[in-house]
Amino acid sequence: MPSVPHLMTLADLSPKEISRVIRHAHVLKRVSQPWLAPQQRNSKLQAKLKMPSQSLFSKSVALLFSKRSTRTRVSAETAAVLLGGRALFLGSEDIQLGVNESVRDSARVIGGMCQGIFARVGDHSEIEELAKHSPVPVLNALSSLWHPTQILADLLTLYEHSHYWPTAAHQEPTSTKFAELRAPRPLTVAYVGDSANVLHDMLVTYPRLGHHLRVASPENPKYRAPEPVWNRVVELGCDKKIWWGADPKEAVKGADVVVTDTWISMGQEAEKEERLKAFQGYQVTEQLCREGGAHPDWKFLHCLPRKSQEVDDEVFYGPRSLVFPEADNRKWTIMALFDLLLGKWELNTSYKTENIDAVGRDTVSDVKS
Amino acid sequence: MPSVPHLMTLADLSPKEISRVIRHAHVLKRVSQPWLAPQQRNSKLQAKLKMPSQSLFSKSVALLFSKRSTRTRVSAETAAVLLGGRALFLGSEDIQLGVNESVRDSARVIGGMCQGIFARVGDHSEIEELAKHSPVPVLNALSSLWHPTQILADLLTLYEHSHYWPTAAHQEPTSTKFAELRAPRPLTVAYVGDSANVLHDMLVTYPRLGHHLRVASPENPKYRAPEPVWNRVVELGCDKKIWWGADPKEAVKGADVVVTDTWISMGQEAEKEERLKAFQGYQVTEQLCREGGAHPDWKFLHCLPRKSQEVDDEVFYGPRSLVFPEADNRKWTIMALFDLLLGKWELNTSYKTENIDAVGRDTVSDVKS
Amino acid sequence: MPSVPHLMTLADLSPKEISRVIRHAHVLKRVSQPWLAPQQRNSKLQAKLKMPSQSLFSKSVALLFSKRSTRTRVSAETAAVLLGGRALFLGSEDIQLGVNESVRDSARVIGGMCQGIFARVGDHSEIEELAKHSPVPVLNALSSLWHPTQILADLLTLYEHSHYWPTAAHQEPTSTKFAELRAPRPLTVAYVGDSANVLHDMLVTYPRLGHHLRVASPENPKYRAPEPVWNRVVELGCDKKIWWGADPKEAVKGADVVVTDTWISMGQEAEKEERLKAFQGYQVTEQLCREGGAHPDWKFLHCLPRKSQEVDDEVFYGPRSLVFPEADNRKWTIMALFDLLLGKWELNTSYKTENIDAVGRDTVSDVKS
Repeated sequence: MPSVPHLMTLADLSPKEISRVIRHAHVLKRVSQPWLAPQQRNSKLQAKLKMPSQSLFSKSVALLFSKRSTRTRVSAETAAVLLGGRALFLGSEDIQLGVNESVRDSARVIGGMCQGIFARVGDHSEIEELAKHSPVPVLNALSSLWHPTQILADLLTLYEHSHYWPTAAHQEPTSTKFAELRAPRPLTVAYVGDSANVLHDMLVTYPRLGHHLRVASPENPKYRAPEPVWNRVVELGCDKKIWWGADPKEAVKGADVVVTDTWISMGQEAEKEERLKAFQGYQVTEQLCREGGAHPDWKFLHCLPRKSQEVDDEVFYGPRSLVFPEADNRKWTIMALFDLLLGKWELNTSYKTENIDAVGRDTVSDVKS
Repeated sequence: MPSVPHLMTLADLSPKEISRVIRHAHVLKRVSQPWLAPQQRNSKLQAKLKMPSQSLFSKSVALLFSKRSTRTRVSAETAAVLLGGRALFLGSEDIQLGVNESVRDSARVIGGMCQGIFARVGDHSEIEELAKHSPVPVLNALSSLWHPTQILADLLTLYEHSHYWPTAAHQEPTSTKFAELRAPRPLTVAYVGDSANVLHDMLVTYPRLGHHLRVASPENPKYRAPEPVWNRVVELGCDKKIWWGADPKEAVKGADVVVTDTWISMGQEAEKEERLKAFQGYQVTEQLCREGGAHPDWKFLHCLPRKSQEVDDEVFYGPRSLVFPEADNRKWTIMALFDLLLGKWELNTSYKTENIDAVGRDTVSDVKS
Repeated sequence: MPSVPHLMTLADLSPKEISRVIRHAHVLKRVSQPWLAPQQRNSKLQAKLKMPSQSLFSKSVALLFSKRSTRTRVSAETAAVLLGGRALFLGSEDIQLGVNESVRDSARVIGGMCQGIFARVGDHSEIEELAKHSPVPVLNALSSLWHPTQILADLLTLYEHSHYWPTAAHQEPTSTKFAELRAPRPLTVAYVGDSANVLHDMLVTYPRLGHHLRVASPENPKYRAPEPVWNRVVELGCDKKIWWGADPKEAVKGADVVVTDTWISMGQEAEKEERLKAFQGYQVTEQLCREGGAHPDWKFLHCLPRKSQEVDDEVFYGPRSLVFPEADNRKWTIMALFDLLLGKWELNTSYKTENIDAVGRDTVSDVKS
């Protein structure tokens, strides 16, 4: 029996696999979009359309979300539909992991009925426990430590806008049916804000794809990467391409892309005063980036939802902002993961578990013909 | 790029378009019903069945419902399935419009992932804001001012029962496969109760289709149509066919159809005492209609859920009542709107917005081949 | 018009129909599983796969759940997908039966839009009321008195493991494509715990299939079967094969299968102290079963979720435990009921109602071509 692949963080994937997911997302997007356009009267045109992968046909993906979510949830539900399957949302009203039943039992039971688990948990250990006992792939939709699907959406967005940062390959003619997705030149990406799950997956990913990271977060250790994260960063040799300081202006120096996130995540409302003080001067604005010496053509990313304290309207709704294409790409990158990881078990992740508790194996082998 | 059509109220549609939606709903109902019957062993019969429109194939419709709903929600979810698509319910537990994120940003993000938005909001301005920023059609599922889908269901029900009110056309033989849906003769429709969203859409619709409206509501201005509604009524010339007074008996004079609604809507529980007093004598009963001089064959409509204070059991469960066929027709008229408005963008509404925020346009054009 | 079949308890089905459901579940499971496996690159193989029944194609099943549920809900939602349809979950946040609207009206309205109702109610009278007024089949997902779908899953699990309890038929070669599902020899099944809905459906089922039941529950009448249940037991002649006492050790004497359930169900948290005391000595352990004289090869069933007080880890996670295959089988037996009862109206239940309120019949006949 094959081992079950899971995805906890992009650190589990090689640069080649990360690139594969991004390119696959791009293809799925192009193939799917004509199906999503207003239907034309001329149905002959539609009959010629290529279908996207139907690897979730008749299948169900459990969305175990212990926290509210709009982008991640809607992305997952709409992506599952396009792949022929169905996402089954189970919020904290529906199931409380570990309260009425052990996480172990829930993982085995839900994994015995669904073909994948997309989980947004509190503490990262919860998703590790799910993966340990689930007979089907577990994909991290957000945990206290990591947010892999967000960074894939960011990367797809940068690749789609690589004409801003062309390489020699951009000059060559393309003969493929779709304009080929090209990687941008090596970029300097600045992150200005709290060290949270979004940043953590950037830390283990951008450097391995050839990009430099410049991070500004307040000095206090609570705003710096926790040990288990930094260990992975070092293990993957990413630390060599990371600059980290406390001054946002220094961080945006030479930046092609500036990224931020909320300073006050769900559950941190009590610390609001303290956090607003700690992040004084961190608001992303034209002025900050001009004074800090960002590249004149810098672009802006934000995972949303956005509060104006971390970025002003001029930047957020202005021509530098890629935030809405970035939000759209949540769907296509999640669809790529659903297809490759949940539908086909084709993604080589370093995070794998042997299939199913011994107690459960029985039935499965029993009914296989 | 075509402008995005939205539907906020039936005032946005011409009488011809309203008639088109009703007839389309009738066809969808007849085509769909054999598929919903218990499946027969003889599958050859089924192979010959005509499929309903699949204009939502692989598509998702976001149901943004800030209030509870049974009829509207179940109608929308089951209609989406029949059209090959999926409704994605987001209640107030899932998303709070304007709380964690601006309505503008939510409209753009959800509209970038789903192919239509069916929204049940509080204040009508919220759905206007959604429509302003959504890249896909927004359909009003209920707002403080309007309730367009309810009146379409009422009209389909009256058309289906037009043998009670025949015209010359009813005598002619029909050669079509389905018995053709015929409009009833010009009717006198009485509404006895609070001036709320259901009545408001009646006010801008029935007169334009040739029917007379007689309304009774208490004298207090809070029980009369608010200004933005009455402006539309006058603008469309509907006021000429509307009688409005405070005496329910006078209202039902000559009525072919009597309509009421709850007096105490969600959120008005605090005013219960006051409202029960204001609406004394408004309960729809045989006696009221006999004394008021309704047409002997008057029929009864109610949008449900029903409390016995506004209509007694004799009427509600008696042979005059069309309330359950009316409830069934919520599904078929919503299906017609989903097909024409969300699936095909074929409905000509006077309420349109240019496509997508400038910030978002980029991706969409980018990926179109 | 045919009468509408409903299923409130397995007492509504003959032994032959029960056996039919179990065998049908087994076939659906074998036919479905290849579709749920990771998709292979070689799609030719898939093209040859037999499809499971699509009797819910384009149809919707309302899940009216007034209490939380994981297994039952996920089973129902994933089963509906496999049958080509859709389950529409309506929890207590979405609808409160009998609060804003009478159960009668809700049954008629929801039954007019959906093709089946799967209801998890509080008091059993609620589901009886639903069945009385619904124009489509109502299936009991759990009530205060009965839990029919759980016992079907238990039976399928015992049948799938019938090699532990072989009959003469087990020696004969099978020529069918799938290994045929064989019934086990007559078993002694011990239930140790509270007299609740799970046990109640065992009481009216196991004896009719030839098995003996031995039950231990505390002496207090509140832990014994209520009158309406016991009446059905006697009516079906099941009482002759039931031993009932207060000593768990005596109950497991000669047991081939030992079953338990939680002692403290949802809503009984206030009685926790009292119940923990009443069930002292009831924990299922190796020692209890050895001392009580269970068959050396006894197996263990539990409907989950499990608390360690009613069964220890050694048994629950050990080789005697069939709890996870049992949980998996919730899905396949619910799928069988959805197919036969909701999709095809083919199941002969003794519980039937005439179709639809008179008030509603009108439309339905009206639109049938």
